[in-house]
Amino acid sequence: MQPLRSYVSGSWHTPDDEGVPLHDAVTGEEIARVSATGVDRAAALDHGRRVGGPALRELTFHQRAALLKQLGLHLREHRDELYALSAKTGATLGDSKFDVDGGMGVLLGYASKAKRELPNDTVYVDGPVEPLSRGGTFVGQHIATPLRGVAVQINAFNFPVWGPLEKFAPAFIAGVPSLVKPASQTAYLTARLVELIVESGILPEGSIQFLAGGAGDLLDHVTPQDLVSFTGSASTAQQLRAHPAVVRHAVRFNAEADSLNLSVLGPDATAGTPEFDLFVQQLVTEMTVKAGQKCTAIRRAFVPAGRVDEVAEAVGARLAKVTVGNPASESVRMGALASLEQREEVRRSLKALLAAGSIVFGDPERVEVVDADAERGAFISPVLLKGDADRAEPHEVEAFGPVSTLMAYESTDHLIDLAARGQGSLAGSVVTADPAFAREVVLGAAPWHGRLLVLDSTNAKESTGHGSPLPALVHGGPGRAGGGEEMGGMRGVLHHMQRTAVQGSPNVLGAVTGRWVTGADRGADSTHPFRKSLAELRIGDTVTAGPRQVSLADVEHFAEFTGDTFYAHMDEEAAAANPFFGGRVAHGYLIVSFAAGLFVSPEPGPVLANYGLENLRFLTPVFPGDELTVTLTAKQITPRIDQEYGEVRWDAVVTKQDDTAVATYDVLTLVAKEQP
Amino acid sequence: MQPLRSYVSGSWHTPDDEGVPLHDAVTGEEIARVSATGVDRAAALDHGRRVGGPALRELTFHQRAALLKQLGLHLREHRDELYALSAKTGATLGDSKFDVDGGMGVLLGYASKAKRELPNDTVYVDGPVEPLSRGGTFVGQHIATPLRGVAVQINAFNFPVWGPLEKFAPAFIAGVPSLVKPASQTAYLTARLVELIVESGILPEGSIQFLAGGAGDLLDHVTPQDLVSFTGSASTAQQLRAHPAVVRHAVRFNAEADSLNLSVLGPDATAGTPEFDLFVQQLVTEMTVKAGQKCTAIRRAFVPAGRVDEVAEAVGARLAKVTVGNPASESVRMGALASLEQREEVRRSLKALLAAGSIVFGDPERVEVVDADAERGAFISPVLLKGDADRAEPHEVEAFGPVSTLMAYESTDHLIDLAARGQGSLAGSVVTADPAFAREVVLGAAPWHGRLLVLDSTNAKESTGHGSPLPALVHGGPGRAGGGEEMGGMRGVLHHMQRTAVQGSPNVLGAVTGRWVTGADRGADSTHPFRKSLAELRIGDTVTAGPRQVSLADVEHFAEFTGDTFYAHMDEEAAAANPFFGGRVAHGYLIVSFAAGLFVSPEPGPVLANYGLENLRFLTPVFPGDELTVTLTAKQITPRIDQEYGEVRWDAVVTKQDDTAVATYDVLTLVAKEQP
Repeated sequence: MQPLRSYVSGSWHTPDDEGVPLHDAVTGEEIARVSATGVDRAAALDHGRRVGGPALRELTFHQRAALLKQLGLHLREHRDELYALSAKTGATLGDSKFDVDGGMGVLLGYASKAKRELPNDTVYVDGPVEPLSRGGTFVGQHIATPLRGVAVQINAFNFPVWGPLEKFAPAFIAGVPSLVKPASQTAYLTARLVELIVESGILPEGSIQFLAGGAGDLLDHVTPQDLVSFTGSASTAQQLRAHPAVVRHAVRFNAEADSLNLSVLGPDATAGTPEFDLFVQQLVTEMTVKAGQKCTAIRRAFVPAGRVDEVAEAVGARLAKVTVGNPASESVRMGALASLEQREEVRRSLKALLAAGSIVFGDPERVEVVDADAERGAFISPVLLKGDADRAEPHEVEAFGPVSTLMAYESTDHLIDLAARGQGSLAGSVVTADPAFAREVVLGAAPWHGRLLVLDSTNAKESTGHGSPLPALVHGGPGRAGGGEEMGGMRGVLHHMQRTAVQGSPNVLGAVTGRWVTGADRGADSTHPFRKSLAELRIGDTVTAGPRQVSLADVEHFAEFTGDTFYAHMDEEAAAANPFFGGRVAHGYLIVSFAAGLFVSPEPGPVLANYGLENLRFLTPVFPGDELTVTLTAKQITPRIDQEYGEVRWDAVVTKQDDTAVATYDVLTLVAKEQP
Repeated sequence: MQPLRSYVSGSWHTPDDEGVPLHDAVTGEEIARVSATGVDRAAALDHGRRVGGPALRELTFHQRAALLKQLGLHLREHRDELYALSAKTGATLGDSKFDVDGGMGVLLGYASKAKRELPNDTVYVDGPVEPLSRGGTFVGQHIATPLRGVAVQINAFNFPVWGPLEKFAPAFIAGVPSLVKPASQTAYLTARLVELIVESGILPEGSIQFLAGGAGDLLDHVTPQDLVSFTGSASTAQQLRAHPAVVRHAVRFNAEADSLNLSVLGPDATAGTPEFDLFVQQLVTEMTVKAGQKCTAIRRAFVPAGRVDEVAEAVGARLAKVTVGNPASESVRMGALASLEQREEVRRSLKALLAAGSIVFGDPERVEVVDADAERGAFISPVLLKGDADRAEPHEVEAFGPVSTLMAYESTDHLIDLAARGQGSLAGSVVTADPAFAREVVLGAAPWHGRLLVLDSTNAKESTGHGSPLPALVHGGPGRAGGGEEMGGMRGVLHHMQRTAVQGSPNVLGAVTGRWVTGADRGADSTHPFRKSLAELRIGDTVTAGPRQVSLADVEHFAEFTGDTFYAHMDEEAAAANPFFGGRVAHGYLIVSFAAGLFVSPEPGPVLANYGLENLRFLTPVFPGDELTVTLTAKQITPRIDQEYGEVRWDAVVTKQDDTAVATYDVLTLVAKEQP
């Protein structure tokens, strides 16, 4: 059997040695071999930097998003093949969907979120313009640009599809190429995934590389612009974090380590309540999905003092119904661990846990299996423990399998202290119908958690559950959980970019960001900018219109017409008593309506619609007799890659006769790419 | 002479040994002794966690900001005393102001920015609500809560006042206590600063502690909730980053290391242009302020090929006018280095630099000094080198004193390559009047920089200069510069907090964040919420009003009244051709004006003003005949701590007869705390 190939430096590399055998988790048969002998890792990193990075940086965020979507849809067509390989890792079909569909969900989720939340541009503008001077000639703005290195992604064995894809998607959107290194145990599945990606030809060459086999000297070659993200054990995370090249170059290092995640049963959720059942159900699900081999699985289940036995009984009764065995078999609810070594590891950890507790369900040494050999396959029974919450072990020892420990808490404060004893977790859940209890636990446990779920009967049907990281939410946790953060929507993209504060004149900031900045030059062109198509419009194109006087009659008429007879518009005496006005004032909505009447260009043309308005602030009251002038300036132009139009954001400033600003806002319009 | 005292665990600790002598940089006299013998560092950290943290977390962001402001104003009254001590570090009055006034500027800057940008609350809400389900019963939201540990701040010798304060301010606003450990050389100035702070009694006990002397076993005691931020040399940064406890607990580690910062003269800035003079002036300033002992000082000055000699001459002519000597002397422009050891270090680095260049101004071994002894004081001449840009040394060796190297670049691409050879810098500057050149250099160099300044004649008067970090902008850089990020306004605050994704029902999210979330319960109270004072108003209080029909006459009247006769409102045929409308539609501004007419409660009452509107989106066209209903719900209530009113943000949804949403937006009002 030939070892798995690596995809590096633009071609598939076949190792010239025999490699290490990998075994089917269910049957024990050899199914693949793995080796990275002969792979020039330094050259691969260099290829990513020289070929992949520049190709990605040519594309806008929207173009990258479109490719990611295309890739997600393409891979979806190959799901069945991936499920079949996934079964060899011990996964049931449900487990495989969690991994495979979850991975494609990240691609599609990032594609759609990036299109919505990022500009169709190569530069990301982070936060508002910062005024740095009184006169406004000197201003600041943060931008983010892609790191010029490679995102080295070292993955765990438990999610051979989702694991690489959840790291790859944000890197790709950021414009940073990836080098994927899977854990050996399940590398054959990741290998097939990467083959599908490479064969599809959808991505620019160099944007993804694949290293089957050991990391070897890989990290020796990282430089300050590379990133290393790792998912796996806390001890390996520590080794990588302290790697000399990582330390020397202050390389961005992200770790997701398995952690002692908790689930809490609220005091209100007594037996018979829907929340009691939800807690029990969820605990069983988290113990058995992927045979408990999830970094986010519940390891510590806290229930109010005096109710441990009751809960243990309910959980045990459900666990008893979980059929273990060959995942190919329809009746099977839980498959095998990833390998026999993994089972030994779980049994060792269980021994340590038994120092602080006792087993209330399951036998680590014995399990009935369906359609498989319990010894050749890496099967193990779900094991529920009852533990002493004041001992160290339940908060420190993780058995990375279908194992959880039930413990009692005395009070909310006690619970929050116990939560902290996990020293940092990826995920936690609170099952309660009491929002006040939920608030107290969430705010008390939040500093120790990357994600917290509050489950109750109102959201149970739609909840994605304790153990599911989502592309829109951060994944990672402090301390023991690795101190990392991945995904979280565009946050995960920004982790792959360098934030830089740029200081300069408004014109220079405009040139750098492609957005007009207050104080920058305005277009000298006398054509009304609403007459210009997206192709013709330039940042800084401006229309100034007015003045128009606002009369008392206008104010009264507007009040009567709209029904907005607020006293500040209608009653001189009452308005004079208002701390901000000192007399009758015009409606804010009257001001923006008149402004629109001033700046609009009514005939059909490229401007198709006003779809919104942002950051409107009324700065100075407008009194009857005041005269309004409006200045509208094209601030940001975003053509859509898949439509015949795009968005234009206009800077609007309404001033009065003495030039004081009355209102500032952004007007959002859709504008056609070409003249109609 | 007694050694400096430490302020730990709530009291001043005097070491019982003699300590190490510290010397006046100008006269060489012993002026203080430093020792931390007998300080229980573990207890100090514990005190911060047990006493300082809880006291800070009791306060809202606005309350913390108010204390910070009070502290800044208090310290300002003691400036002269700090200037006097600062002179002993070798600093001129200008240098001292940079340090002392700069530090107070950070306090005041953070106070005012936090008040403006953070809620008057203890929980920070990060980003929008994330929809996680179709039915809307399950949603997500990121929050940030203060880490429960101590911010350990290890500072450099060159900014004994600004250094600790720029780290302290964001930590304090976040609600995290600080432990300040200054570099020994200038610890006497930081010691006095902390005395002033502690004696003022302004801050809650435990929010600041001070360790005079070595770090000792300090870092052995850090836990996952502590932070370590370091400013100093790249080599020490590496040691601390790899400290076993930091690695084991994935402790947040931030480093600002001195770096090989660049300044670029644009091709347009030939002799005689204002930019040429600005480049020369700025280079001389950066070389001589603080005698060049700034992490951000210019070390690499790039000028177009063929113009090195011309620039060298101009810089040399200016440097020749810089009087070196006793900073107490009025004529002196540049003082001493911080210590004789520091001078030896600079001379050593200069020797290394000479392998790749030659001196064009100054003599490292000799300098004329005013009113001081050139050998007893740590004086050195400014030294300008001319270097070979293709050699390694000018990009790697930093002489931490008044030393810069002039080098030639051949093209913009060459320049960007050279910029990267610094392997990561805190700050860079480009002096040019050409925005296109500025854009190219900024975007090319940005991945290697934390801050980039573009200087030209339009902003020179207001520019804060190459070397000045500002509270609103990030300070830090990748790679060699430490890979850190400090300040940057609220970004620096968030670095001290844990971001947590919270998932649950809208009601639970509302309970956790104190903000009403779409889908959460609305108040059942029938009182119009505009009749309620801030004290009476509750999140979720709602008014629903309507329906009101929009007639064609309304649309035509509004068009005529405001002047907004856009064809989509006026011309059926043209409107039908518009891709979004299919017929005449009502003005967006008409919709929001009618909505206001529906929800307003006109009589004088607690609602004082509508000061703005945010995130307005028009979702569905409104056709003549449609009927509008508006629902306004109190979403966020922010009482001001220093006014009799506060802000209320209202969620507004306008729907039409078939319940489709027509417009969504937030209405911003000012509401009195009590009934008038």
